[in-house]
Amino acid sequence: MKRLAKSHLNKIKPYKPGKPIEELKRQLGLKDAIKMASNENALSPSSRVISSIAKAARDLNRYPDGGSFYLKKELAKRFRISPDNFIIGNGSDEVIVFAVRTFLKSGDEVIIAKPTFLVYDIASRVEGIRVKHVPLRDYRYDLESMRKAITKKTRMIFIANPDNPTGTYVTRKEVERFMSGLRRDIIVVFDEAYYEFASERSDYPRTMRYFKKERNVIILRTFSKIYSLAGLRVGYGIARRDLIESMNKVREPFNVNSLAQTAAIAAMYDEGFVKKTKRLIKMGKSYLYSELDIMGIMYIPSATNFILMEIGPDAPVIYKKLLKKGIIVRNMEAWGLSGFLRVTIGTDRENRRFIKALSDIWRQL
Amino acid sequence: MKRLAKSHLNKIKPYKPGKPIEELKRQLGLKDAIKMASNENALSPSSRVISSIAKAARDLNRYPDGGSFYLKKELAKRFRISPDNFIIGNGSDEVIVFAVRTFLKSGDEVIIAKPTFLVYDIASRVEGIRVKHVPLRDYRYDLESMRKAITKKTRMIFIANPDNPTGTYVTRKEVERFMSGLRRDIIVVFDEAYYEFASERSDYPRTMRYFKKERNVIILRTFSKIYSLAGLRVGYGIARRDLIESMNKVREPFNVNSLAQTAAIAAMYDEGFVKKTKRLIKMGKSYLYSELDIMGIMYIPSATNFILMEIGPDAPVIYKKLLKKGIIVRNMEAWGLSGFLRVTIGTDRENRRFIKALSDIWRQL
Repeated sequence: MKRLAKSHLNKIKPYKPGKPIEELKRQLGLKDAIKMASNENALSPSSRVISSIAKAARDLNRYPDGGSFYLKKELAKRFRISPDNFIIGNGSDEVIVFAVRTFLKSGDEVIIAKPTFLVYDIASRVEGIRVKHVPLRDYRYDLESMRKAITKKTRMIFIANPDNPTGTYVTRKEVERFMSGLRRDIIVVFDEAYYEFASERSDYPRTMRYFKKERNVIILRTFSKIYSLAGLRVGYGIARRDLIESMNKVREPFNVNSLAQTAAIAAMYDEGFVKKTKRLIKMGKSYLYSELDIMGIMYIPSATNFILMEIGPDAPVIYKKLLKKGIIVRNMEAWGLSGFLRVTIGTDRENRRFIKALSDIWRQL
Repeated sequence: MKRLAKSHLNKIKPYKPGKPIEELKRQLGLKDAIKMASNENALSPSSRVISSIAKAARDLNRYPDGGSFYLKKELAKRFRISPDNFIIGNGSDEVIVFAVRTFLKSGDEVIIAKPTFLVYDIASRVEGIRVKHVPLRDYRYDLESMRKAITKKTRMIFIANPDNPTGTYVTRKEVERFMSGLRRDIIVVFDEAYYEFASERSDYPRTMRYFKKERNVIILRTFSKIYSLAGLRVGYGIARRDLIESMNKVREPFNVNSLAQTAAIAAMYDEGFVKKTKRLIKMGKSYLYSELDIMGIMYIPSATNFILMEIGPDAPVIYKKLLKKGIIVRNMEAWGLSGFLRVTIGTDRENRRFIKALSDIWRQL
């Protein structure tokens, strides 16, 4: 039969969803698996957030507020800008898709680091946009080379900061140099999903400066990480009003569910929870660093809630052995990082279980 | 400044989100407004569904199951087909967008009735696809004329059945005639969002027949209407495996939130709730019909949970007067149906309040 999909889609591999953790447990006969694979917050949402959800559930027969009126209002208050400068997505990855669908057309080019968060590449190729990949340099975005890669056709550049899967970030100075004199018809998307983990570092860039200077930037933040709402899907973009208005044209009216809107507001004001998460990550990171040091396992120092480890050629074997012990980490082969595993910082107990398992496996190799 | 969005988007009006009902109440000084505007279920989700949500909320720090494994498994069981024949959307309107983005390219044409559910037209125009509108005939889809409107460029035809905003449906025979000999490279999207309200009618079409015959059809169903989960965003498409696989390429991996997946499964098995809703609609409809008859207000007999009323030139005035009394219905002017209002069937109390208000206004005109 004749293929019905657009021809450029034929080149894209169908998405193979991973099995849910419960299925994995059933298949491997595990009683008690822990997931340290998806850079999630190890802490459940706070009771304040959970009770806001339970309360709002009675009204689920009603459509969500299509304008995310109250959430945008609260965000506007926090950022001291207008609600019209926000677009809310079904996760911030939806805003990535909005940006591509709104601003890029066939023939345009985007510049994307390699490796980095996979959605930039997929979202672009799905729209038939040409992607130019610029390798990382010492596991960090190489903004200098990315800038050199710009051609007449370049219309968008993605910068994950901090980056996933490396956990590194580009500094204020590097971003300044990159942005100064950048051609004005190029949109820079700063994906700051892990912002809250890195923002206290003195050289972490303040991209809101570029927004305030009315530059062509889209700044992405999310409630999936430090705010612990990955399951509910809510993130947002900050940009000049005309950019937001254009992106709103490709947004479906009810893209953000009611509970996500309610829970995001509750989570925003739960400063105790944010502090608790930061403490957990700080302590967990220093524990994992020191244990990895003892084992002699290399890792990339991280400004996020996960650590990229350079395990060497045994990485796939170790990945599988960890899995058998009920510990799910991320094998980075598919990202072109063979020999690497990525582990999300968990609770104290999870971290200890991971280290115990890893050192047992490590010793027996 | 040079416009950055794709040129065909410039022709599309920016979406102006309506104010949430709480804002409306505040502005109009209303204490107790009722919404009969959006074809929602008047009943809150059952306690069974609400407790499934409260229970799942603890795990919201985790990403949703990207493959909607359990939901597809349950749907597959119910329909006695494979899980691979389902695609789950962030509401069934997302599946409409998937279909357009996957199968239509610049130069293709779609055929859409006028007026009908607005998303078919918007989703197509956002992608720069040419839309051919075919008027309804006696407030019903005119499949004969839609078929005559097919050209070499036609690649997709949308059929809302039952239709929104008319509440009418096309019959099994009409669909049979339409489908027989239809060109095989045309995809027919049967949007059956209101299926459960109409399916007991003996002449309502069984479109699963065409799926089983491996025709190019995509059948849409939703949890937003009879299952009372509009706020959570979950709907699905049923189609041949190759069509599903292609659409999965444009789907973001975590498009369906965790609570939507959990609640949809709970709602599917809550047959008591479905029966209760059907009873509510049946009784409410016969009450509203008889009261409208008494007032001499024309309406289109409906196979759904809403009624399209032909009010005449006073419709906008009556709409506003109802609003001042705290009753929100839908003014159909924007759909090209001036003189019409659409009311969603509510609870007994809401229906009575609506009729009381309407007849007070009607008498004073």
